[in-house]
Amino acid sequence: FYLYDEGEILRRVERLKGLFPKVEFLYSIKCNPHRRVLDTVFSRGFGADAASLNEVLSAREAGLPAEKIYYSAPGKNLWDLEHAWGKCVLIADSLGEVHRISAIAADRGEQAEIGLRLNPDFTFRGDGGAASKFGVDEEQALAFLQNGGARNVRITGLHVHVQSQELSAEILAGYYRRLLAMARKFETVCGKLDYVNMGSGMGVPFGASDRELDVERLSALAKPELEAFQAAFPDTRLIIETGRYVTCQSGVYVTTVADRKDSRGKTYVILKNTLNGFLRPAVASMAARSGLNPPVLEPLFTTTDAFQIHALKEEPPTERVTLAGNLCTGTDVIAEDILMPHLEPGDAVWINNAGSYAASFSPMQFASQEKPEELFLTAAGEVL
Amino acid sequence: FYLYDEGEILRRVERLKGLFPKVEFLYSIKCNPHRRVLDTVFSRGFGADAASLNEVLSAREAGLPAEKIYYSAPGKNLWDLEHAWGKCVLIADSLGEVHRISAIAADRGEQAEIGLRLNPDFTFRGDGGAASKFGVDEEQALAFLQNGGARNVRITGLHVHVQSQELSAEILAGYYRRLLAMARKFETVCGKLDYVNMGSGMGVPFGASDRELDVERLSALAKPELEAFQAAFPDTRLIIETGRYVTCQSGVYVTTVADRKDSRGKTYVILKNTLNGFLRPAVASMAARSGLNPPVLEPLFTTTDAFQIHALKEEPPTERVTLAGNLCTGTDVIAEDILMPHLEPGDAVWINNAGSYAASFSPMQFASQEKPEELFLTAAGEVL
Repeated sequence: FYLYDEGEILRRVERLKGLFPKVEFLYSIKCNPHRRVLDTVFSRGFGADAASLNEVLSAREAGLPAEKIYYSAPGKNLWDLEHAWGKCVLIADSLGEVHRISAIAADRGEQAEIGLRLNPDFTFRGDGGAASKFGVDEEQALAFLQNGGARNVRITGLHVHVQSQELSAEILAGYYRRLLAMARKFETVCGKLDYVNMGSGMGVPFGASDRELDVERLSALAKPELEAFQAAFPDTRLIIETGRYVTCQSGVYVTTVADRKDSRGKTYVILKNTLNGFLRPAVASMAARSGLNPPVLEPLFTTTDAFQIHALKEEPPTERVTLAGNLCTGTDVIAEDILMPHLEPGDAVWINNAGSYAASFSPMQFASQEKPEELFLTAAGEVL
Repeated sequence: FYLYDEGEILRRVERLKGLFPKVEFLYSIKCNPHRRVLDTVFSRGFGADAASLNEVLSAREAGLPAEKIYYSAPGKNLWDLEHAWGKCVLIADSLGEVHRISAIAADRGEQAEIGLRLNPDFTFRGDGGAASKFGVDEEQALAFLQNGGARNVRITGLHVHVQSQELSAEILAGYYRRLLAMARKFETVCGKLDYVNMGSGMGVPFGASDRELDVERLSALAKPELEAFQAAFPDTRLIIETGRYVTCQSGVYVTTVADRKDSRGKTYVILKNTLNGFLRPAVASMAARSGLNPPVLEPLFTTTDAFQIHALKEEPPTERVTLAGNLCTGTDVIAEDILMPHLEPGDAVWINNAGSYAASFSPMQFASQEKPEELFLTAAGEVL
């Protein structure tokens, strides 16, 4: 089962709110759409970053009003847009989407107020912009707006998100700085912006060499530009999105030992529901065992040591074992030659960093294994 | 949606049956558990290779009797074994499992007749055996049986499966030869074997350099040993398992274009439900784009060119585009700089090799996208 710790989620939510008191926050539903997780973050004022029509509907069901749900995803077709109409803030991901929205608005005799996702002319490293499947190139968007935009559509907000899982406060602050400078240009062209969604990319430490993102420092570094922007544009709300930063480390995945065996000098401990229950540790282990060092490919792959595995018993480690899953595939191995206490069938092991891109990002139906449950530890200590 | 072609499945089923008339076949449910696929292969006499308790129950529901369902998976705990009892042929994957089965049989006052999965002292390449999470090392199993085995348990069958996705008839024939030589040793020690499940590993061509497995040649090469074994042990049934060989190429995955955009010199075509709907092409593309050449890690990764993507329109290719999915992640790309006809929203593309480890092996619930349907094209031409 998965267990999500409400207390940890709340601590992170409150830390962000305290450090960025004049910024609004959105929660990226896709990283963990568990209803109680949504209730927790929404209860503290977070809005929703919805990556699909169904996520828009989930946020509605959890009680959010349309104006706190931002539907920003590539590839929204007419069907998506029509069904999301009026239920959320639409963020067009392309000029094609702007034109589809324009057509719907014209049909309805309405004036649509939408956001536009931009692909800015800079990256996290400060150099020129790259091609991207996300958003409209900054320069294309400016030209489009300067040429009058689309009928029945007014661009009232911007959305930018360039990269995830960043641990450097300096890099994130530099990104905010360039982003706000770009937003100033659009304030002029658009007339007035209701909001600038800065996306974000706040990461969490996964591997041994990762250091916790210093959010205090990020707040201090970003403060002058944030305040200057807000002084210049007091009617434009600033928004930061986050997903894994608030939930990743709140979650653990617990599974049980089903069997053990010795084979030609190696000891195998067979666990229930590894690759199928929680895909990412199996992918990390595959990369490690293959001697590969793939680039970071969030959310599928972060680092080879992104997940720590512990026995749920207080005994010293005494054995080098291979931890394998119970799927009929050799790829279902999550650690090789790991030092563990002696494990027998019925013992439990747990894996950290299981609060984001975990239950929602695993091929749960594979081999018709029992699906892991998702449990929720309330701040009051109750398990639901 | 996925579409599975019954005609293609039947052609492959009948080809195997014709080439190996004295061998029984099992279908590996995990590779495609769609009910109509099961009905198709079971209707032609295939039994089931079940990789979980739920797969045992699926095979029962599809009408197979217990003696045609072989439950062979690592990590079967007491709960699995008790619930599968009497519903299938149990294949113990470890000596621990043999002892658990022994305990259940003693409790019930029964004599259990089970199979034993072996980890043989050879590989597909002919060298000495390797450590494995699967089965009991051949030499351990022999010692165990020679020492009297376990109470209330009789080993009446063997199961071996060493490797999947093999395209060389010579290598497979060599594997069968070594396997049957090993089985002869066990025939003596076990008294008499009811069956030897040879597993298999028959592959299908994925990449451009792959050649179709020559099953005629495999049949011809294997015939002398198969016949000699059957002459020596006329009461021992020989079994071959197969999954992807009969279903992989029967399946296609069809999805639609949701959007297109130009970004800094590149053209992006945004498709619905790629990584989440069919994981493997996205993984293959990630490896290709990363410049990696990972080892074959079935079923997650085969080759970087394992899936061919075609437009479902009869126009010549005119554009170099990047095919990306509609998930909010940069990893959701299935082809970069691929030559395609001009694609607009509403057009369809299809991907081949989607009949195995496809619908069942994808994180369908990710981002709460619409789940692809699974359709079935009957041999009579009806779509169900």
